[in-house]
Amino acid sequence: MKVGIVGLGLIGGSFALACRAGGHEVIGSDVNSLHRSKAIELGLIESACTLKELIAHVDMIVVAIPVDAIAQLLPSILDKISDQQMVVDLGSTKSKICNTVEGHRNRGRYLASHPLAGTEYSGPTAAFVDLYRGKKNIICERDRTDEDVLLKMQALFDQMELQCLYMSAADHDKHLAYVSHLSHVSAFTLGLTVLDIEKDEKQILNLAGTGFRSTVRLAKSSPQTWTSIFTENSSHLVTALEQYITHLVDFKDSIANENKANINLKIVKANKIAQVLNGIKIEDVIKQ
Amino acid sequence: MKVGIVGLGLIGGSFALACRAGGHEVIGSDVNSLHRSKAIELGLIESACTLKELIAHVDMIVVAIPVDAIAQLLPSILDKISDQQMVVDLGSTKSKICNTVEGHRNRGRYLASHPLAGTEYSGPTAAFVDLYRGKKNIICERDRTDEDVLLKMQALFDQMELQCLYMSAADHDKHLAYVSHLSHVSAFTLGLTVLDIEKDEKQILNLAGTGFRSTVRLAKSSPQTWTSIFTENSSHLVTALEQYITHLVDFKDSIANENKANINLKIVKANKIAQVLNGIKIEDVIKQ
Repeated sequence: MKVGIVGLGLIGGSFALACRAGGHEVIGSDVNSLHRSKAIELGLIESACTLKELIAHVDMIVVAIPVDAIAQLLPSILDKISDQQMVVDLGSTKSKICNTVEGHRNRGRYLASHPLAGTEYSGPTAAFVDLYRGKKNIICERDRTDEDVLLKMQALFDQMELQCLYMSAADHDKHLAYVSHLSHVSAFTLGLTVLDIEKDEKQILNLAGTGFRSTVRLAKSSPQTWTSIFTENSSHLVTALEQYITHLVDFKDSIANENKANINLKIVKANKIAQVLNGIKIEDVIKQ
Repeated sequence: MKVGIVGLGLIGGSFALACRAGGHEVIGSDVNSLHRSKAIELGLIESACTLKELIAHVDMIVVAIPVDAIAQLLPSILDKISDQQMVVDLGSTKSKICNTVEGHRNRGRYLASHPLAGTEYSGPTAAFVDLYRGKKNIICERDRTDEDVLLKMQALFDQMELQCLYMSAADHDKHLAYVSHLSHVSAFTLGLTVLDIEKDEKQILNLAGTGFRSTVRLAKSSPQTWTSIFTENSSHLVTALEQYITHLVDFKDSIANENKANINLKIVKANKIAQVLNGIKIEDVIKQ
């Protein structure tokens, strides 16, 4: 199959590498000329071209650019493809993107997808062939995609060892607000708070241990990628943030009052996250 | 040297192992009988005894129990030691502990220390010999400790490859509020928020990726250890939390208003944490 990757950063570049490893022919486009040359140099793609040329030459178009740019670009890509071509996006939000192509005559040729994979690094140099191996891939509005497109995409995901899950775009965006977008805001904000105090109290960060480094790791993530995710999913994310802030103010009050019983109870509750992350059902965890 | 470890969890147990690896004779005490027997079974200590017996038999007493318990117990340990014995604690807060022994006739035999090492696991089974290797150890009120105690402790820390830094107890507690205690509250609260929503929206946590797992890792930490740290350092921690919440509300407002310029600016600023954590001076990072 001929695959065209639009956007040659961590997400698109890694997808390109996995496609090449699977024996597919891969070309790419990127508005950033440095990304194009770097992607060729690193062997992410065989050659670079314009978006127009890419659409004219490939069987499958993979859109891996910031989510607000996907929402802008996707309708015009669907305008230009034939009824044999297909399009998939790898964006971290789904509702607004799906809405922009609802009712498009070529809607059936498009699959809305979000592989749950990434790192705190960005750009073509951050790409690696195994980024998607063993990860989960959320497919939204499955029934709006043509059966032949679904089958071909599924075969490619299987080859990459990406496990598909299916849900509505609304559920996707709500759930991801909690398990991904919220933790990014929390990490960015932790970074901002500690950098602020470091200005007055030099060398505080000399004391940072592995715990702090782990919690703040996501604060290194790309401004372009995350600005667009936060704005595209603002409604769910603001709700999640309000709940987080309510819990946080309550925690702060318990600490201010040195209420050991309350603090202890909160930590015991929070500890249950370990079991739930290990796959134990929340009902069984709460009962303990 | 004969070393007596009071408290046989992750911190005391790992210290015991490092002492044994350095050729020292190590006995231990713990109010929890299961911890005592487990510590012997795992070879953390050679034998277990009561605190009274331990004080009667060792050259160096290492106190590795929750910080509120250290503050309670330390004066009575200093009451009972000879002028040849010495005491060190490994607690994560220092001001209240140092205050309880200020003016004690044996104050000079005590060293206030905090090795910046730990994991999210607890108890004797979590202990491992290399926990302290290559880590930093903060020594507070150095000039209140007798020279011979300081030299012997320093030799032991050198043997364990623990690098000593010196600061006041007040500075220690303020700085640790930002680079350790705040990130623990943030992780516990993230856990609480996501567990809350998981009750209504089953299986959200199925979607948790490596980013979420990294940010929430510290939420698995011990309730007993962290309840006492948060209450012993409540004043500095509440200040840090207030600053964190202010930044967070501001971030939320930018997202609610879909103000891309503001969100982008915050992320670009937060990104600088990576360079500061890599040892680049904050003045040079801010200029960029």
